[in-house]
Amino acid sequence: MREFVVVGHEAPTTAEFSLDDLPGAGRLDVLCRCVTAAFRLSHDFRADVRVRLVLEEEYVVRFEGSELRHLRPDERSAGSLIRGALEARDGAVGAMEATASPGVHIGAGDLGTAVEAAAETGPVVELHADGAPIVDLEPPENVAFVLSDHRDFTDPEADLLERVADERRSLGPAPMHADDAVTVAHNYLDTGGFERY
Amino acid sequence: MREFVVVGHEAPTTAEFSLDDLPGAGRLDVLCRCVTAAFRLSHDFRADVRVRLVLEEEYVVRFEGSELRHLRPDERSAGSLIRGALEARDGAVGAMEATASPGVHIGAGDLGTAVEAAAETGPVVELHADGAPIVDLEPPENVAFVLSDHRDFTDPEADLLERVADERRSLGPAPMHADDAVTVAHNYLDTGGFERY
Repeated sequence: MREFVVVGHEAPTTAEFSLDDLPGAGRLDVLCRCVTAAFRLSHDFRADVRVRLVLEEEYVVRFEGSELRHLRPDERSAGSLIRGALEARDGAVGAMEATASPGVHIGAGDLGTAVEAAAETGPVVELHADGAPIVDLEPPENVAFVLSDHRDFTDPEADLLERVADERRSLGPAPMHADDAVTVAHNYLDTGGFERY
Repeated sequence: MREFVVVGHEAPTTAEFSLDDLPGAGRLDVLCRCVTAAFRLSHDFRADVRVRLVLEEEYVVRFEGSELRHLRPDERSAGSLIRGALEARDGAVGAMEATASPGVHIGAGDLGTAVEAAAETGPVVELHADGAPIVDLEPPENVAFVLSDHRDFTDPEADLLERVADERRSLGPAPMHADDAVTVAHNYLDTGGFERY
């Protein structure tokens, strides 16, 4: 299992946004591309992946690859699933998530709860341009990568990650978009640390 | 300079398509994501990149990073530039391209002419799932990567590439989308072959 926790700092928390303007919806285009990058393969699908999108410290949308249906590789497709999750958000009560569609769940939460849940199954690696090169790290099993959208982590988020993350790593010298980081992180794991394939 | 030649096998050759349904326009979403993946960095832009999109063996749209404006990171933005190029296509006469917007040019052409032009500035590397691991290859200067959209190269295209490409390489064991391949290829070059950064 591989997991990606992506923090959306301006992402919508209601379904009142247009699929025709995902950038205008708090740069939801970035989060959409993170979701598709996490699951898509050429003519295939990564079932052993989980994604948690943290929306504005209010909601966490959880995508389970083993259950997921109806995700195509384009941005709008992921946007539609996120909108569906936000339409179902009032069904989430306390710690109980609501299920919006197969493999798409929503619950109250923030980065802290998302990382806590991710840490139950494996090590947590923060991806950050300022981290040490990931190439020196033996690819961990069942890793959860934590990354931020087009904005950097806030100070409280950075403090939290400094406490709870096992590693803080960079994927390369060029500062990359979050969704490109998801793609490169998959490649790093697929190739056993860019080597053994 | 880095160059990407991407072949679109069902891509539109007229501007008669909707930005609201890029997948329905011959999977133009794939080509759009290839363009944005080639140029975007986090809060920055790769000016030393050229992309040639081969549309249905009829037209080649050339994106020049050093001239390009108005490209945002979302799919629609690239789709809009491609539509603009197709609107300007009748201005291309013989070997002369038409310029649709800053850094976006269109001309008659196919994979053969695109690769021939790319080969003038550096080595040509075909990216293919069946190629030898790229990790064994010292990153070449001024390389042009050639890749296909959601379809494999046709037999004539494969024959052409076997003749003219200097290398045929795979980026990893997982069969990836063309746009993810662009992202990983950049990372391979950025990190000096996944090592020296």
